[in-house]
Amino acid sequence: MAEVRHAASALTVGAHLAATGTGVRLSDEQRLDWLRLIRSDNVGPRTFRSLINHYGSARAALAALPELARRGGAKGPTRIYPRDQAERELERAQALGIAFIALGEADYPHRLQMIDDAPPLIAVRGALPVLARPTVALVGARNASAAGVKFAERLARDLGEAGFAIASGLARGIDAGAHRASLETGTIAALAGGLDRIYPPEHAGLADAILPHGALISEMPLGYEPRARDFPRRNRLISGLALGVVVIEAAQRSGSLITARLALEQGREVFAVPGSPIDPRCEGSNGLLKQGATLVTEAADVLNVVRPILGQRIDLSAQEPERPLSPPGEPEDDERARIVGLLGPTPVSIDDLVRLSGSSPTIVRVVLLELEIAGRLERHGGGLVSLV
Amino acid sequence: MAEVRHAASALTVGAHLAATGTGVRLSDEQRLDWLRLIRSDNVGPRTFRSLINHYGSARAALAALPELARRGGAKGPTRIYPRDQAERELERAQALGIAFIALGEADYPHRLQMIDDAPPLIAVRGALPVLARPTVALVGARNASAAGVKFAERLARDLGEAGFAIASGLARGIDAGAHRASLETGTIAALAGGLDRIYPPEHAGLADAILPHGALISEMPLGYEPRARDFPRRNRLISGLALGVVVIEAAQRSGSLITARLALEQGREVFAVPGSPIDPRCEGSNGLLKQGATLVTEAADVLNVVRPILGQRIDLSAQEPERPLSPPGEPEDDERARIVGLLGPTPVSIDDLVRLSGSSPTIVRVVLLELEIAGRLERHGGGLVSLV
Repeated sequence: MAEVRHAASALTVGAHLAATGTGVRLSDEQRLDWLRLIRSDNVGPRTFRSLINHYGSARAALAALPELARRGGAKGPTRIYPRDQAERELERAQALGIAFIALGEADYPHRLQMIDDAPPLIAVRGALPVLARPTVALVGARNASAAGVKFAERLARDLGEAGFAIASGLARGIDAGAHRASLETGTIAALAGGLDRIYPPEHAGLADAILPHGALISEMPLGYEPRARDFPRRNRLISGLALGVVVIEAAQRSGSLITARLALEQGREVFAVPGSPIDPRCEGSNGLLKQGATLVTEAADVLNVVRPILGQRIDLSAQEPERPLSPPGEPEDDERARIVGLLGPTPVSIDDLVRLSGSSPTIVRVVLLELEIAGRLERHGGGLVSLV
Repeated sequence: MAEVRHAASALTVGAHLAATGTGVRLSDEQRLDWLRLIRSDNVGPRTFRSLINHYGSARAALAALPELARRGGAKGPTRIYPRDQAERELERAQALGIAFIALGEADYPHRLQMIDDAPPLIAVRGALPVLARPTVALVGARNASAAGVKFAERLARDLGEAGFAIASGLARGIDAGAHRASLETGTIAALAGGLDRIYPPEHAGLADAILPHGALISEMPLGYEPRARDFPRRNRLISGLALGVVVIEAAQRSGSLITARLALEQGREVFAVPGSPIDPRCEGSNGLLKQGATLVTEAADVLNVVRPILGQRIDLSAQEPERPLSPPGEPEDDERARIVGLLGPTPVSIDDLVRLSGSSPTIVRVVLLELEIAGRLERHGGGLVSLV
């Protein structure tokens, strides 16, 4: 059903990004490799990108994983997602009407691919065109007040009528109100679990109602039950899909504030709706206003900010696609030991590692990949790494 | 009871301002003259100031009023407040424990005398020292929500405990909450009617409760029943007393927004408390936030702004005290006609009048005073005047 074009085997994520909108597509084999790679132990979105950029393809990266893990000093076995399991996931997805879209493909949400930990593959169910629409995220308290939900509905409806898709997290309260009010105009729910594990369960009907004009997306495997710690990670997708995030009724230390912080890190606009200082559900949103978030009492407050952004051409060259190496350099044992010796539990910058080790940036990156695949490295923001 | 010092007969309002804090006091006779002058037809605070500055004393100005009115072309008689009536007002005030404090006297509220239409005399009942305290005004909706009143009480209590007097307007809702919560620490109610005409009547008990540690003030005569149009005028006193005005739950086109506008014109800080966009009572206050008012969810938000202002020395020389003229110049008839001929219903600047008429600034001012006393001149902001 999907037209499969042949893509160069040395296709890199960077090249994918550069080719955005030109309709570059993975072959079925490539998609299987991508799925296996991102589902393998210790491979997150950033590591995935490093591996693809270093080895030139997911297949080559998969082949390198056992050796990388061994050289990185993995304590136990590093599990590579089995081919048959990936095949079953793709078959199951197809049966459920779920598409896996790869970073760089035309259907991949435009803004989402710009974040540095964009998922290499997203599972999507529903109307794919909604992902191409300019999007505003609405998030807020699960235990929202009636006034909060009413306002979320009003804002989602008005933004929807103004041509924007509404992204949220399918949670109770504000999220549900935002989705409900934009079912006809188009809404996107980013899930923390697999697309066949709707959470909360009572929103299964709402999830179905989203599909005709909107979409459910997830980076997690089918069948995956979301745990509490998966929600903050999921929140980066909500903000990443959007030009801006509107926070309605968020308490202190709430998930909505995490989404607002991620939005700032991603360079997205942050909006907040004012609320009574007497209501603890408004402490977080009022706090955002004090920190400079744009105050929203009507859709125009959002439109005035996001419409001018829409007019700006996005310069993807800022993504700095890296050149694949062939053949990848391999560090000598003593060189690896010297680099590992510079690492500890305190985050250090990769630039410092290169400078202090005297090794080439390529070698340092390979050693870091090894440690990562071995489950021994943690990546922080701003190019900082530490040993786990 | 009050120590009466002899003040120079040529005492000007400007000189008063310059002497602030040195304890300059009007004699009983002077106070009587001041009261008669400000209670006479067509004499408002700005005209009062012009008259005192031009004639050197209220007594001389009173003597000049009939001739000024005649020369200005008054249609009917211009009523000068009779001496016996002023005496009765002062006697009645004394019996009620009400003091009349003149602009420039030590007890006159420090900040209030800095506004350009400060009342020449204010009637004060209660504890005079509260007028010397740094003050924050809290204003808001009469039909406030329970949450709004609760927040007003909390804020007034916290600001009171931080050493600030609380100014408001004794209205239902927010005002009453603000006063009630600061009865012990000190609160000031500025009334639109006479001090013996408490409005609304059911707040008579609250007004009495204010007196031990706070004060009621008014510029209106005893016995004066406030009308709707008196409240905006009164609002300038609330903002004028304060370093800043906090607006809590204000609808569009509400009196609280007038107070906020006056506060801006007076160079006072404007604060607003966020509220639900669903609640029409919060449209005005949220609108102020959009326009840049400081968002307040706790007393610290106010204190962080007003405490640094307190530390600033106020330069009263910015008030530009004008020199009294002796003898005042008198325009010739043709000169007067020429100046009046330049005036019309469209506001023009006094500077332009001086330039276009070729008359001296003094002569132009005298002609304007004549027209004013005759009830034919309207003064606008920014030195603009027009014929009525």
